[in-house]
Amino acid sequence: MAAGLYIALLHTPVYNKRGETITTSITNLDLHDISRVARTYGVKRYFLVHPQGNQLELARDMLGYWQSGFGGSYNSDRKEALKVLDLAEDLDEVKDRIVQLEGASPQTVVTDARIFSQSISYLDLRSKIQDSAAPFLIMFGTGWGLTREVIEKADHILYPLESAGDYNHLSVRSAVSIIMDRLAGEAWWDPS
Amino acid sequence: MAAGLYIALLHTPVYNKRGETITTSITNLDLHDISRVARTYGVKRYFLVHPQGNQLELARDMLGYWQSGFGGSYNSDRKEALKVLDLAEDLDEVKDRIVQLEGASPQTVVTDARIFSQSISYLDLRSKIQDSAAPFLIMFGTGWGLTREVIEKADHILYPLESAGDYNHLSVRSAVSIIMDRLAGEAWWDPS
Repeated sequence: MAAGLYIALLHTPVYNKRGETITTSITNLDLHDISRVARTYGVKRYFLVHPQGNQLELARDMLGYWQSGFGGSYNSDRKEALKVLDLAEDLDEVKDRIVQLEGASPQTVVTDARIFSQSISYLDLRSKIQDSAAPFLIMFGTGWGLTREVIEKADHILYPLESAGDYNHLSVRSAVSIIMDRLAGEAWWDPS
Repeated sequence: MAAGLYIALLHTPVYNKRGETITTSITNLDLHDISRVARTYGVKRYFLVHPQGNQLELARDMLGYWQSGFGGSYNSDRKEALKVLDLAEDLDEVKDRIVQLEGASPQTVVTDARIFSQSISYLDLRSKIQDSAAPFLIMFGTGWGLTREVIEKADHILYPLESAGDYNHLSVRSAVSIIMDRLAGEAWWDPS
């Protein structure tokens, strides 16, 4: 990979099942599962993004338990994974932090069920990430997904993960796992 | 896919972090996240396998809430996903159930960090699943993974999911997501 790869999990603005814009709560498992994916696929930072101070405080407490409390000494794999985790209030703060680290703004990436002018295939984006000098920020939303305004502002929009049938409602943890494997995993499909 | 594809999540015999053989508890999220992966990738049944009746009872209660209680009417996507979920006491029961459904024993598949005589690549197993008349059962373990005795008895052993660096400790939910995408997902890497 030419430049840094970053993940952000946004808890707002996301849709609920009725298509209303909401803010969801931070969950323990989004913190652990996605940190482990990030660490496995060489992601530089995984930003947990929430606008409310008390929610970030809660995340900081959970982190403390695993980083310096009992959890970290009992389960060092988790402690290691959580080193990539970072907290931020909003997307602007995430981008600023990446500019500080990389000296360049990240190209932003989302997935969506619809096709836009910025739509791109997994294979093409994988090549871009490998060849580009710019950092990439792959953005995910909790709840029923990122709102249309966030989607439309992204530099690249990945096609939806296609399913064998009519059902396509993966958890955000599964979606992050699959998308990072496609974008940054080994070329397992290449027999050469 | 020529024949049925099945998933089993075994809570025993699995290792703990010290390499001792243990039985883990059923967790709510393994039930939901993996059901949604199974439903998305056309898996016929996802078997949650636990030897203890009270644990299966607990899982049955959770299922009831989503299938006929408040949860199911509130969140129909979860209800739909959980239709693929089934409970079993041990691996023999799972195999018997598949024989009843398919009229043939499944070929069993696991992943392991080591290389064995039955080791196979993701690409080769993907072809086998597509071409074979036999059903396939992809087996996963909780905790620190399935014990060596289970691994060695499997018909096929997938190579470990390779990581960019030195770290490779994905959650079982992430591993199931990635492996099912590789074995049964769209051929996203094929530009033709």
